Amino acid sequence: MAIGIGIAGAGTVGGSLLRRLLEEHAVIEVKTGLDLEVRRVAVRDLSKSRPGIPADIITDDVMALVSDPEVALVVEVMGGLEPAGELVLASLRAGKPVITANKELIAARGPELFAAAADAGVPLLFEAAVGGGIPIIRPLTETLAGEQVDRVLGIVNGTTNYILTSMADDGVGYQEALAAAQRLGYAEPDPTADVSGADAAAKAAILAGLAFGIWVAPDRIHTEGITDITFADFKSAKQLGFVIRLLAVAERRPDGVSVRVHPVMLPVDHPLAAIRGATNAIYIKGSSVGELLFAGPGAGGEPTATAVLGDVIDAARKYLSGSQVAPAIKVEPGDVVDFGKVDTRWYLRLEVTDSPGVLSQIASAFADAGVSLGLVRQEGRGDSATLVLVTHTAPEAAQQAAVATLRALGVVETVASAIRVESEEA
Amino acid sequence: MAIGIGIAGAGTVGGSLLRRLLEEHAVIEVKTGLDLEVRRVAVRDLSKSRPGIPADIITDDVMALVSDPEVALVVEVMGGLEPAGELVLASLRAGKPVITANKELIAARGPELFAAAADAGVPLLFEAAVGGGIPIIRPLTETLAGEQVDRVLGIVNGTTNYILTSMADDGVGYQEALAAAQRLGYAEPDPTADVSGADAAAKAAILAGLAFGIWVAPDRIHTEGITDITFADFKSAKQLGFVIRLLAVAERRPDGVSVRVHPVMLPVDHPLAAIRGATNAIYIKGSSVGELLFAGPGAGGEPTATAVLGDVIDAARKYLSGSQVAPAIKVEPGDVVDFGKVDTRWYLRLEVTDSPGVLSQIASAFADAGVSLGLVRQEGRGDSATLVLVTHTAPEAAQQAAVATLRALGVVETVASAIRVESEEA
Repeated sequence: MAIGIGIAGAGTVGGSLLRRLLEEHAVIEVKTGLDLEVRRVAVRDLSKSRPGIPADIITDDVMALVSDPEVALVVEVMGGLEPAGELVLASLRAGKPVITANKELIAARGPELFAAAADAGVPLLFEAAVGGGIPIIRPLTETLAGEQVDRVLGIVNGTTNYILTSMADDGVGYQEALAAAQRLGYAEPDPTADVSGADAAAKAAILAGLAFGIWVAPDRIHTEGITDITFADFKSAKQLGFVIRLLAVAERRPDGVSVRVHPVMLPVDHPLAAIRGATNAIYIKGSSVGELLFAGPGAGGEPTATAVLGDVIDAARKYLSGSQVAPAIKVEPGDVVDFGKVDTRWYLRLEVTDSPGVLSQIASAFADAGVSLGLVRQEGRGDSATLVLVTHTAPEAAQQAAVATLRALGVVETVASAIRVESEEA
Repeated sequence: MAIGIGIAGAGTVGGSLLRRLLEEHAVIEVKTGLDLEVRRVAVRDLSKSRPGIPADIITDDVMALVSDPEVALVVEVMGGLEPAGELVLASLRAGKPVITANKELIAARGPELFAAAADAGVPLLFEAAVGGGIPIIRPLTETLAGEQVDRVLGIVNGTTNYILTSMADDGVGYQEALAAAQRLGYAEPDPTADVSGADAAAKAAILAGLAFGIWVAPDRIHTEGITDITFADFKSAKQLGFVIRLLAVAERRPDGVSVRVHPVMLPVDHPLAAIRGATNAIYIKGSSVGELLFAGPGAGGEPTATAVLGDVIDAARKYLSGSQVAPAIKVEPGDVVDFGKVDTRWYLRLEVTDSPGVLSQIASAFADAGVSLGLVRQEGRGDSATLVLVTHTAPEAAQQAAVATLRALGVVETVASAIRVESEEA
């Protein structure tokens, strides 16, 4: 029996998916026993030439996927909040399984969409929404369904990881690395969503929701991007045995969960330190399973289409069986630990006047805030000097208080850098 | 509605699973909505004290799990071919979903068991059979269901990886590293199944079957272990920019598939080179998705129990829904490429007499076999010298012919080492 597929969006991911469904139809049928037929493709611009796609199945009305009785499964790869949100909800309510790659939509409206899927008793699958081609949603919701996950760390934005890697390798500044990434297609003309950390925050919300069952909306996630990282930070990082990565961090704590996105100094021997260029990776620490690492291409049409296609096949199998059982994703609002109370460590680079008593004033600022120093190193001498500091673990609020005091000290010319250090202290 | 679980085996994995199902019953119910009740536990030795397990559910009759109407799902964590095989088959035929961690059984009788599951229309789940706690079976059968997988490389035996890592790090020989691994519990008192590569071959058969849909029985898998690796090989590896790993290799080739297990020299920047100690990892290269890496604990009661528990939850969800849909695993006998025809590269270490003309004789041996040399390095001088060679890619049969010729040369005292090099040539 043919299973009709409706696809909203024929861009990078949609185009790859369409090509696979059309050109590899026979291969997929031999491999899976499923006759997947593309019945309708909704696009924004009807006038654009779309070779390979039969003209009679193209429409510019996304809601046609819901009303067309020949469309059994709806694939949403158009992105953005609307009309994607309306399409997904209407499809679920019409009893049609939905496959989406839309992290922005899931992050913004996850609980509502999961509930709609549960009410309708049909699957809502979104393997491609985090980590592109990396299988991570299914492992989290199925294989680890009985595990207490304590911590999820993710390099979930390939653009920023590419920029950070090339700054470190090529000794170039942020602007130059960004321009190169744009030339190579690793960064959008407007890179804001990536470099600000917003894209990573959407994925962090999804990962935390699935790992902990607690939903933290993206606007409650402390988010910092990479625009302030300088080449001098990479030099310091190297000397200290660190690499710099933009991490999505989700951790279970006694008083709730903490979810955040910010650059970190990561020890070179951490499994995520080896993740270079546009590659993504998710590290999971569970109380029983220990440490898991999943790595692969986090974006790109073909890898993402692989994840979408896997979901389509899964949904089609369930559809054919007459039972749409999928792990009900239960997420609830939960206690989010105030970031100020979360223990962090900091790397700081200060420009200071090179005079006696400077270090004692700085050390006092930390002591007064209740933060102790793990490392102090002076670089350069003369009228002014550079001090590199690494603190011990203390609550984020205390670290910030110490930095605020530093900024007010006459001997501190600038706090040139402040990057959190991600490492377990001995 | 409570779902009755029957468990065969209360050893390391069974014990961890039992503890989780009994002690974390309420936590699992909150998280998944499932009321999982252990109804029967089959053990070999009834006289052994088993604190925490109610005495009235313990039996020494594994087939009681099949006949007991209160047992809905059967978990086989006893290991070995029999009576595990009889239990799994009888359970499937009785319409009971089966969860097993038994790689030996799946490798030996996979096609028969998959067919029995398909005939009965119930799931046969075995996430824990390869890679312990690493989610790999579900990604391969579900997320990558529409992908053409070209290559799977796995570090799938923690014992051998532990031994190889400590030989490299501590500069000790094989026997010493093995003894240390045994003291620490990373190696069995009889380590044969691990160090011979047999355990890895069983996992290679499963990975190849799932990746390619072609079943290669373990006895058709070319298998070499690690017992011949010497400390001198690690010294050479380091100089050449390689690490030594025992790999399960499954690759799709134009003329069929090749599945094999043997030690390899792996470039230090290969993703699998970073996998150290008892950690396992599986690297997958797909034609669309590119490179994926999955890493984590490959053995141990707790991690393996996490994977088994994930399968139990999946099976229970399907059972409750009244539909037992699971990806039908279709494997067929297929063309297995003769290993002699597979392209390989070799690292060789020879003890030779240090006299003029030696190198020319050796070079001729390779040239006659149609193998060209990529690197030749002499170490030491005097009456005898050590030659380290790395060949270019050539069919395995040609490489072996060249080595056979070398062994017969008067100037070659011994071929001390011959290890394949796993790297794509420029």
